[in-house]
Amino acid sequence: MTVLNDETLKGESFTDEALTVADRAVRAKAAFAAAVGQEWIIDGERLAREFSDPYDTLDAPRSQGSYVVQPGSVEEVRQVVRIANEYRVPLWTGSQGRNNGYGGSAPRVPGSVLVNLRRMNRVLEVNETFGYAVVEPGVSFAELNTYLRENDIALWTSVPDLSWGSVIGNTMEHGLGYTPYGEHADQVCGMEVVLADGDLVRTGMGGQSNSKNFHTHQRGFGPRLDEMFMQSNFGIVTKMGLWMQPRPKVWRSVWIHAETDEGGYALVDALRPLLMDGTITNRVLIMNLTAIVTALSKKKDWHDSDGPIDDDVRAAMRAKFGLGNWNARIGLYGEPDRMDVEERLIREAVAHIPGTRYESREYPGDVRHEDVLPPDQAVAGIPDMDLLRMLDWYGYERPGHVGFAPIFPLTSGDAREIHELIERGSTRMGKDYGAAYALTARSMLMLCLIIYNAGDAEEVRRTFEVTGEMIAESAAKDYGEYRGHLQFMDRIAGQFDFNDHAQRRLNQKLKDALDPRGILSPGKQGIWPSAAELGA
Amino acid sequence: MTVLNDETLKGESFTDEALTVADRAVRAKAAFAAAVGQEWIIDGERLAREFSDPYDTLDAPRSQGSYVVQPGSVEEVRQVVRIANEYRVPLWTGSQGRNNGYGGSAPRVPGSVLVNLRRMNRVLEVNETFGYAVVEPGVSFAELNTYLRENDIALWTSVPDLSWGSVIGNTMEHGLGYTPYGEHADQVCGMEVVLADGDLVRTGMGGQSNSKNFHTHQRGFGPRLDEMFMQSNFGIVTKMGLWMQPRPKVWRSVWIHAETDEGGYALVDALRPLLMDGTITNRVLIMNLTAIVTALSKKKDWHDSDGPIDDDVRAAMRAKFGLGNWNARIGLYGEPDRMDVEERLIREAVAHIPGTRYESREYPGDVRHEDVLPPDQAVAGIPDMDLLRMLDWYGYERPGHVGFAPIFPLTSGDAREIHELIERGSTRMGKDYGAAYALTARSMLMLCLIIYNAGDAEEVRRTFEVTGEMIAESAAKDYGEYRGHLQFMDRIAGQFDFNDHAQRRLNQKLKDALDPRGILSPGKQGIWPSAAELGA
Repeated sequence: MTVLNDETLKGESFTDEALTVADRAVRAKAAFAAAVGQEWIIDGERLAREFSDPYDTLDAPRSQGSYVVQPGSVEEVRQVVRIANEYRVPLWTGSQGRNNGYGGSAPRVPGSVLVNLRRMNRVLEVNETFGYAVVEPGVSFAELNTYLRENDIALWTSVPDLSWGSVIGNTMEHGLGYTPYGEHADQVCGMEVVLADGDLVRTGMGGQSNSKNFHTHQRGFGPRLDEMFMQSNFGIVTKMGLWMQPRPKVWRSVWIHAETDEGGYALVDALRPLLMDGTITNRVLIMNLTAIVTALSKKKDWHDSDGPIDDDVRAAMRAKFGLGNWNARIGLYGEPDRMDVEERLIREAVAHIPGTRYESREYPGDVRHEDVLPPDQAVAGIPDMDLLRMLDWYGYERPGHVGFAPIFPLTSGDAREIHELIERGSTRMGKDYGAAYALTARSMLMLCLIIYNAGDAEEVRRTFEVTGEMIAESAAKDYGEYRGHLQFMDRIAGQFDFNDHAQRRLNQKLKDALDPRGILSPGKQGIWPSAAELGA
Repeated sequence: MTVLNDETLKGESFTDEALTVADRAVRAKAAFAAAVGQEWIIDGERLAREFSDPYDTLDAPRSQGSYVVQPGSVEEVRQVVRIANEYRVPLWTGSQGRNNGYGGSAPRVPGSVLVNLRRMNRVLEVNETFGYAVVEPGVSFAELNTYLRENDIALWTSVPDLSWGSVIGNTMEHGLGYTPYGEHADQVCGMEVVLADGDLVRTGMGGQSNSKNFHTHQRGFGPRLDEMFMQSNFGIVTKMGLWMQPRPKVWRSVWIHAETDEGGYALVDALRPLLMDGTITNRVLIMNLTAIVTALSKKKDWHDSDGPIDDDVRAAMRAKFGLGNWNARIGLYGEPDRMDVEERLIREAVAHIPGTRYESREYPGDVRHEDVLPPDQAVAGIPDMDLLRMLDWYGYERPGHVGFAPIFPLTSGDAREIHELIERGSTRMGKDYGAAYALTARSMLMLCLIIYNAGDAEEVRRTFEVTGEMIAESAAKDYGEYRGHLQFMDRIAGQFDFNDHAQRRLNQKLKDALDPRGILSPGKQGIWPSAAELGA
């Protein structure tokens, strides 16, 4: 058995002398087919096309599944985990499978059986009175939004930058949107989970068979365990209640463009008190120039060089689009005269920052996508796929990006520190760097987009090397990561070193108790069963 | 070994043929004294006076601890749990020990060693920029508030009805206050926990040794486990970060008095949209007449009868204090012109309800307790002990009350259902009934105060009998409990019956993994180790 350490990929440890993971997958295949139906087993060319890491090197991907199993019901999910226990084959579960930038559909352990939940795509309930939806894992943000429109329900979704992803999948990964309901994990109310032994549990008040409170009250009697199932490998969520925002009569998208980097950092300090006192309730995004311009144009429109854009290019970009080096997007909701007060407070808070420009646009609550100026849509939770265009910046046939998303306190000093850290990294890669600070009232998450040519194996290798350096540098400055690419999960988990990695030991103790054979997504977030051999 | 079922108290099962729990406690006493110092072991008369259930029958209390151990540091807590493992003696941990109405300091298993954390009473840090405090378990709400005042820190606490309780203790029990930060569990950011084996873990970003994000960002890398330690017996929390509200310039206490019960129920529906859309951000309380009047006067001031007050008395009470049968208390904060808009929306929302009276008072953010009209204080998180006076309603030498606190959806129909259920119960007891709905945006918690004579053993017995009936009746209507008295924990946990009590089985699996000998508060919230004998 391979000893656990931060630098070892554990795939090879899920074998014994007789059987590899791939062997086990082959043996189990007929049983999975009998459980879900032969037509819901996917392999061959479609496996490679749809259920891999789309941003990995094409010829030599680092990790691939053996095949995909698509259960169509909770009962089938329960059968799938029972079969995996019987054949001791690791599963790797995805909802839509859109975890791009973090590994796509690829597993930690090569040869794992991929469980994909797209078939379970029902909106089980929407309650307009209480503002919640109950969804299955296959429901995407775009589909949930369409459901609301088609049934004329006056509720809003909160959507991430790309709306093709699963509502449950995104929420399980601590994903975010940009409305006041943008911290999706906070909106979860009542889940149904298949455990590794095939048992089925409902969280919170849902533990009562016909509870009237399942999706209206988050805490039951005893510990609330919903978050134990997020960013972990302790169960498969088959159903989730999610609170949603009532559709306001009108809403506003307020922009503050700061011409200089200094101005951008200053915005962070200026907005913090308004976030903390509840004047601003949405998830504010502060985007750099590159992040916006890459969605609106191509690199070749701006200069002939292969290297990163320079200050002259930036000046031209600012002038053409009326942008600053940093651009804050704020959402306000509800009563116009209340929003007027809020706008006054925002203007006052940023008045001392030189070189800022203020914009505000008002829209009706039920405005359609096409009537909203991009990228205001996300402020109202309107699904959008525009940001996919950012990948076309260089014109690569196979572009890619890798998630690097440090968390840091909401101060100008920390914003500068992180921005400079990533800028050094992108310069080492010779790439442009799209950046966005996503704010909570006390912290920020840096969403960093550095696009590479996934058709060039050396460029892929170099990108991951530098990303690894940035992750190490960030930890050396006592910042942590919000999420991580497959490739970095052990390394990031290893940075949580308090009391000899007590947190990892605790996670492993839970893993061993809930999933002793380690069949559920072993290695996810650096959580491995202690018997890392399935044969053990 | 006793078989687990809902109706069996498990105390006797923590023995083997040779040793009772009390025997084990006696054996371990010297080791505990060596660990914490002899002067921090409390028994005899002080044990009975300070660390029992103060509302239980004096002569024949249902459960008492053997003695109290008061560790003074995290290291001593770790030693205490190691000793408990060695001697296989159950611990029952309290912070301040003010869990009155739910059992006070008394344990589930008679003879347990009580661990009391009052000595660990340091405010470790208050950060004004980010609005958080880091406290030890012995810090009460009143002490934290005093700390803020004395150090001139412009942050507010959120306090429960009585401010003598521990901030950590209250939060661990899903306790509430009445400001926008009133759902205390939601404000937790970063904990330090001693596990049953003496290990020490920090949650979330705190897993990084010197994390800059420990108390500014709630989620780390991997599952967030904070809530796993609330209302459970999986660890002892020795340190907790709690977000606090910035002190506003001014705030308002808005009251809507509804003359009739019908009007009171209607308030619930009228306020729900304003809670859901963020117009009202605090934890609104809707109190019945009795709940307010019992704090302001004595029963004998109103009538000579021993029986419940009648409609004539209620009319006299309404007239004297200008109250309604139901009285909603709402908090508004910040900019006066923003609050004006909010008041307009509130007035419009309740305008259709006949017989309502509207009141509004504005106070400066730093107003002192004595300059606030009771009970407006809680709206600004100002500590108060006035509500203790409610216990003097009948003039009993030893008054008591038992917590019964069902959760239900935020509708007038559910409000009526629960109110009538409790009214029937209090009538069976022959008692008056103080009630308060504590609102979230989608659910309510009924805080119910029925005072009994704890000096009368038959009255204690009868009160618990009827409370048990109300718990059963509430579950039969598919409502659940927010918290429970020691006496009812197994019964309530047993009502969570989905999939053959899957939730309880999951909790027990976690218990067995984290605390195989079952030494931490066995039976709390109905969670028992599967080897319910310590001798096993």
